[in-house]
Amino acid sequence: MALLARIDDASASPEVKAVFDDIRATRGDDTINDVWRVLANDPALLADCWRSVKETMKPGALDPLTKELVYVAVSIANSCEYCIQTHTRAARAKGMSDAQFTEMLAVVGLASRMNRIVTGLQVELDERYRPPS
Amino acid sequence: MALLARIDDASASPEVKAVFDDIRATRGDDTINDVWRVLANDPALLADCWRSVKETMKPGALDPLTKELVYVAVSIANSCEYCIQTHTRAARAKGMSDAQFTEMLAVVGLASRMNRIVTGLQVELDERYRPPS
Amino acid sequence: MALLARIDDASASPEVKAVFDDIRATRGDDTINDVWRVLANDPALLADCWRSVKETMKPGALDPLTKELVYVAVSIANSCEYCIQTHTRAARAKGMSDAQFTEMLAVVGLASRMNRIVTGLQVELDERYRPPS
Amino acid sequence: MALLARIDDASASPEVKAVFDDIRATRGDDTINDVWRVLANDPALLADCWRSVKETMKPGALDPLTKELVYVAVSIANSCEYCIQTHTRAARAKGMSDAQFTEMLAVVGLASRMNRIVTGLQVELDERYRPPS
Amino acid sequence: MALLARIDDASASPEVKAVFDDIRATRGDDTINDVWRVLANDPALLADCWRSVKETMKPGALDPLTKELVYVAVSIANSCEYCIQTHTRAARAKGMSDAQFTEMLAVVGLASRMNRIVTGLQVELDERYRPPS
Amino acid sequence: MALLARIDDASASPEVKAVFDDIRATRGDDTINDVWRVLANDPALLADCWRSVKETMKPGALDPLTKELVYVAVSIANSCEYCIQTHTRAARAKGMSDAQFTEMLAVVGLASRMNRIVTGLQVELDERYRPPS
Repeated sequence: MALLARIDDASASPEVKAVFDDIRATRGDDTINDVWRVLANDPALLADCWRSVKETMKPGALDPLTKELVYVAVSIANSCEYCIQTHTRAARAKGMSDAQFTEMLAVVGLASRMNRIVTGLQVELDERYRPPS
Repeated sequence: MALLARIDDASASPEVKAVFDDIRATRGDDTINDVWRVLANDPALLADCWRSVKETMKPGALDPLTKELVYVAVSIANSCEYCIQTHTRAARAKGMSDAQFTEMLAVVGLASRMNRIVTGLQVELDERYRPPS
Repeated sequence: MALLARIDDASASPEVKAVFDDIRATRGDDTINDVWRVLANDPALLADCWRSVKETMKPGALDPLTKELVYVAVSIANSCEYCIQTHTRAARAKGMSDAQFTEMLAVVGLASRMNRIVTGLQVELDERYRPPS
Repeated sequence: MALLARIDDASASPEVKAVFDDIRATRGDDTINDVWRVLANDPALLADCWRSVKETMKPGALDPLTKELVYVAVSIANSCEYCIQTHTRAARAKGMSDAQFTEMLAVVGLASRMNRIVTGLQVELDERYRPPS
Repeated sequence: MALLARIDDASASPEVKAVFDDIRATRGDDTINDVWRVLANDPALLADCWRSVKETMKPGALDPLTKELVYVAVSIANSCEYCIQTHTRAARAKGMSDAQFTEMLAVVGLASRMNRIVTGLQVELDERYRPPS
Repeated sequence: MALLARIDDASASPEVKAVFDDIRATRGDDTINDVWRVLANDPALLADCWRSVKETMKPGALDPLTKELVYVAVSIANSCEYCIQTHTRAARAKGMSDAQFTEMLAVVGLASRMNRIVTGLQVELDERYRPPS
């Protein structure tokens, strides 16, 4: 169970309502995921998190689907079930196919495997990649 | 210092030489990164890791640059300095611009932030995403 | 489901009963959380963990609430749901307000974000902070 | 070596200079840590990270030293050497004694130990803490 | 809920059936754990993961039980509930006693504690262990 | 650089000297690793950590080499360079061969890979492993 209550639309302060309205406008639907309702207990933190998500995930030098793939990959490494579930849905909404999903998982698995093996061997960065002393 | 010695070309067994040759052919240059030279102490593990990297990172439903971005993102979450350094170079070789690099970092930072906040609040997956009971 | 059975009061050996008595005396109530009941399958490990918790979390140069905030923060980083749930309750019992809770979460989120960005950029420790060579 | 160059004062764009000025004003000294100089390659990300640090770490329901202790604790869990080094210095500047430092480390060690033991035992949250069904 | 459907025996393609048959033959029973059924949505990834598990976990310089203990320990550090549950069962099938289980947990707890304390203190590797310069 | 000074033998208080003497007696040589010298700034924490290491790593239902393998595996997952370096040396002193070392690394790599893939797929624990409702 969440450690703070979910704030419903009726209980939302004007500050919170403004964020919920912007989430709905940005999504193009009526959904307010529970993470936002629980965060709404701290309206300033809610507003800052939403602003961050909106700004960071919009199209830029990377397209939105690529950004979702990176987001899901990190959420897997951090074992955040809620984020994996919700952002996989977001990735699908942005066009991710099952083949792209399992390919991303294969990369996450490979990187995790190689990260640990390299760390376990304590390999140091090659001379050719270090700055000249 | 690495916990096993780097195997140079002269000391490489035929099994190891075959892997080094394939790495060079695949890269299109002469570079054998130190991770492969240290792994060469266990030729079977070297061969399996190289095969995995080659198969997983080739073009598929995801293009190679997207795969490198995911690989680097996971390596950051796992604090693997060697992998971050070498795979960022690989990503650049596959076309990653500085803008794409910092956008990927912004997503990694955002996801790490939101993962921890959601976990700290113990938000449960919304009813609308759970299977009907 | 837990991988070892919960040991109830009736089944507790004298060694385990002594630990349960001390937990109750220290808490000032009758509660034995399930973690202790499951750990009781290894009485020596139970005793050592309880001793550690009691010694480490008592007032010192840091007050108990500050210690709980640090404990919860680490539990979030380690994705330990049980510890987040139980130690947030402990923090509330030691005076943590909702405002303190969400401020702590904001710091955990910020640190996680900055940790990953700094690691991704591979920033080295500034010259001014390194010892003179 | 950092993956992007450090931007010095002379090369700083007006947007970056504004952030550097605010860092100096907030710190009350002339220091610009290298993390900011490297982040300056992406002025928008620099500005957002600085704003976040400044807003989140200011006094509130939690005092600044408590916030630094939480920040360092998370940085330890995330193995971020740069952040541990710089934020321990910040904590000392905010009054942290060696005794407070080692007590915080003892809590971080205890929480990490208990998190893993609880997760390994797969202890489920006690009935008394779950909502009535 | 899993993000891809479980593939049952009737729906399995020849490629998938071959893997399921090999799992059953290797286990010596009829069980196909759900991880394999979900992975079966990507037959190539399923085949590669199964091959890896079979090759890596077989007897070698380390016996199978020791390998399971290491596997479970890493799964605890990575907070993978599914892997902790299934591989603890595998470890028990390979002879792990409750005493061995709790001793392994004690080591995992100790290492996690010491890792964090050492990292927090930023202890550098002793001179005696570094290569002569 | 370590965040607290190393305490040398001459500066050691009686409490610290007692711990250093016990370390030497247990090791059977004169070595005091720097982790103990830095921890010596907090004699109570030093004594508790040493006691824990000594008690947990002694022979029991698991032999000392198996315990070191688990300890190193966890240290790899936690990216603790100091612990990986020192405990690999300890493992070698307890009989670990290079073949055992690379087999342990292969298991750590496999587990990390499978943990992330399973978490990414959000596979739930099979019905057959859950308690009857």
